[in-house]
Amino acid sequence: MKLLEEKIKNDGKVLSDQVLKVDSFLNHQIDPQLMLEIGKEFARIFEAEGITKIVTIESSGIAPAVMAGLQMNVPVIFARKRKSLTLVDELISATVHSFTKNETNEISISKKYVNEIDRVLIIDDFLANGEAALGLVDIVQKSGAKVAGIGIVIEKSFQPGAQRLKELGLRVESLARIASLSNGEVTYINEIVEELI
Amino acid sequence: MKLLEEKIKNDGKVLSDQVLKVDSFLNHQIDPQLMLEIGKEFARIFEAEGITKIVTIESSGIAPAVMAGLQMNVPVIFARKRKSLTLVDELISATVHSFTKNETNEISISKKYVNEIDRVLIIDDFLANGEAALGLVDIVQKSGAKVAGIGIVIEKSFQPGAQRLKELGLRVESLARIASLSNGEVTYINEIVEELI
Repeated sequence: MKLLEEKIKNDGKVLSDQVLKVDSFLNHQIDPQLMLEIGKEFARIFEAEGITKIVTIESSGIAPAVMAGLQMNVPVIFARKRKSLTLVDELISATVHSFTKNETNEISISKKYVNEIDRVLIIDDFLANGEAALGLVDIVQKSGAKVAGIGIVIEKSFQPGAQRLKELGLRVESLARIASLSNGEVTYINEIVEELI
Repeated sequence: MKLLEEKIKNDGKVLSDQVLKVDSFLNHQIDPQLMLEIGKEFARIFEAEGITKIVTIESSGIAPAVMAGLQMNVPVIFARKRKSLTLVDELISATVHSFTKNETNEISISKKYVNEIDRVLIIDDFLANGEAALGLVDIVQKSGAKVAGIGIVIEKSFQPGAQRLKELGLRVESLARIASLSNGEVTYINEIVEELI
């Protein structure tokens, strides 16, 4: 997605070979107009999948997921990392390790909102090692619903997450696919491919 | 806001005299179309305030805040309850106690995104004791920015939050104002007022 790729190059900060900081428009400060465009793009890509629900994880997945839900006219459920006192229903849970935050969380959704008849689109802001996405896949599959696709805003393609999900036979679509963060620079997969042609 | 009031009566669950559960459309499952209407309503209410930024708190404030940001064409910043490894900038923090979750958090935003020239609209899903909103007010004021208003989706008017904020001279606008949750029923302030007329 051209607009997003340019935004990352202009406003993202490469902190190391592994870490890209996009907290000026995605995961601390949010650019609502960009989120709307991201939502439209997910709706376009997954149009034929018959999506009935979107599942994401708090907090940075919520903005792109809600905009996709608006475009696709389906509800969005965000998995919680901590239990709320008002979340008293039967829960479906999975364990997720976050390398960025260096902590392990049990993530949960209420059994009430996803079930056998659903075709679920999983959306998240980043895909790196795939821990969060795999946890969401686990939860959706435990609910009996079908994972109809995984939509990622930024994929760090040099880390194994996308591969791990594809090996499960899942459709993964990432709007920006980063091949490398070496030398303080963002290089996309499609830039390398273009060079090879 | 009629649409929201009806949604709460139809889909909300009164768990006790104090606790209203709205996790079917606001703080676990999200209704994106309703969030858009909420965003439009905040934009309408605060149109004359010259808002330059919206500040909210993860996680349930994000969806209504982003929709308001979309309508008002301003960025949204969400305060974090835990520190991310990529959030390395200078932070502005405040301490907030959540009665619902029974825990105390330090909430923070990066100094970079709010400053003297900003007129900030604070948005949150619930206003009860006012702890979260007061924490956000504290952070915005520490940044040097002006709090131009506070937009709340659901106010539990029988708890002291709204009063505490108004005593600081702040403009508080809540889209649904609940006078009571007694007898398992939601009663709005405007219903009581109508009865009195």
